[in-house]
Amino acid sequence: MFTYALTPGFTDTDALGHINNTRLPVWFELARNDVFKLFTPDLDPKKWELILARIEVDFVGELFYGKDVEIRTYIERVGKSSFTVGQEAWQEGTLGAKGQATLVYYSFTNKASQPIEGELRASLEAHLRPETS
Amino acid sequence: MFTYALTPGFTDTDALGHINNTRLPVWFELARNDVFKLFTPDLDPKKWELILARIEVDFVGELFYGKDVEIRTYIERVGKSSFTVGQEAWQEGTLGAKGQATLVYYSFTNKASQPIEGELRASLEAHLRPETS
Amino acid sequence: MFTYALTPGFTDTDALGHINNTRLPVWFELARNDVFKLFTPDLDPKKWELILARIEVDFVGELFYGKDVEIRTYIERVGKSSFTVGQEAWQEGTLGAKGQATLVYYSFTNKASQPIEGELRASLEAHLRPETS
Amino acid sequence: MFTYALTPGFTDTDALGHINNTRLPVWFELARNDVFKLFTPDLDPKKWELILARIEVDFVGELFYGKDVEIRTYIERVGKSSFTVGQEAWQEGTLGAKGQATLVYYSFTNKASQPIEGELRASLEAHLRPETS
Repeated sequence: MFTYALTPGFTDTDALGHINNTRLPVWFELARNDVFKLFTPDLDPKKWELILARIEVDFVGELFYGKDVEIRTYIERVGKSSFTVGQEAWQEGTLGAKGQATLVYYSFTNKASQPIEGELRASLEAHLRPETS
Repeated sequence: MFTYALTPGFTDTDALGHINNTRLPVWFELARNDVFKLFTPDLDPKKWELILARIEVDFVGELFYGKDVEIRTYIERVGKSSFTVGQEAWQEGTLGAKGQATLVYYSFTNKASQPIEGELRASLEAHLRPETS
Repeated sequence: MFTYALTPGFTDTDALGHINNTRLPVWFELARNDVFKLFTPDLDPKKWELILARIEVDFVGELFYGKDVEIRTYIERVGKSSFTVGQEAWQEGTLGAKGQATLVYYSFTNKASQPIEGELRASLEAHLRPETS
Repeated sequence: MFTYALTPGFTDTDALGHINNTRLPVWFELARNDVFKLFTPDLDPKKWELILARIEVDFVGELFYGKDVEIRTYIERVGKSSFTVGQEAWQEGTLGAKGQATLVYYSFTNKASQPIEGELRASLEAHLRPETS
């Protein structure tokens, strides 16, 4: 698991007084920096090798301005050339939202997906969500 | 079906040269204005009666800056007190992304969901995606 | 003058119930598309020749969700290699915000500013704000 | 001076490969949280007493994805009922942008500005930018 703490800004709120839903995909992408570094350690966009295929977010509670939010990031599954990231947004011990993102390991040079193997695969698997029995 | 045409801004791009994935939930929410009006015709946030429960987006192609994007919005399902919206982002005849959003008809006064009935239900059902045989 | 009509999204509001201030620089940039086309008619980012040097925004009133906003864009000044854009955000006949943006005509190849001359200069000057006497 | 460190997200970049200009007003607002707390210690939007009157940003260099950005926030001036905040965005020892924001101490109940006095005034003045001789 990776954890990332972020501070909501006033602009993240909406007229209902809480954090607007569209901020969660942004915050989850921000917290995926830790996963991106497994592929591109210096985060140089010119060396990028990932494509986002799908996201989903479940809004299970409210998140508010004024208190930090902790994003917890797990690897849920590692496939042949794609993998799924599971993420949660917690605030003061309460889960506000959870999401999944499916990414493809992709060569922009060859315009094709590529297999996740060896050390790279192991680096992802090291962050697999522990099974709950 | 509702359609909404929008113009991408330069800020909607990212370092990979195309539209950043986090813009799609924003664009889909913007195009849901037409659905929101079925519940709150003047869109006054103080009279709001909807909660977003879940979104999902599939990124099936690239979207670019420089050409308008058409968002097509359907009602996919109407349940007892919730419903699902299906949306697509098209650019120059190509589907770039599609998504779903599940919303709950909710009374902020009673802090409880409320049944979707009568004219309101009919107004949603009028926009159900036509079945393809 | 260029005019651009946009529809606020729910996410553009903040907890004070109106449009958040940080959206104005985004909306003004969006409306500058018309100016960008004078330099790069197909808006291809790979052919970009502009750098933003400075923005300023005066918030003179409130803007709200639920009604379209009209952005009016003028050229305020054309210098040797830079120019200033003046912009206003109107809603239902009321001015909500006005801003200025100073841009530099720049060659990313030569890493240097370049003179605004000939037809390009004329195309900017055609949109100079009319003097009020 | 207040300092706030933030991590750019991939979505903060644009097609030119660096941080998009519209993110700076957002980042500066985020870093003004420290100033907002002088007025509303728990940052509850329902107790808000500030209105933003004006912002300006000078883009003096590029900012990039992949490295943290430090926002430095000063009080530049304290007037009768308004004050000006000066802010800078630094990355790896280089100044990327600087800005000013003018805020009004405002009573939403009375719909009028109110004088900045006593402890509140002193709390702002404690963060005045030191004069450089």
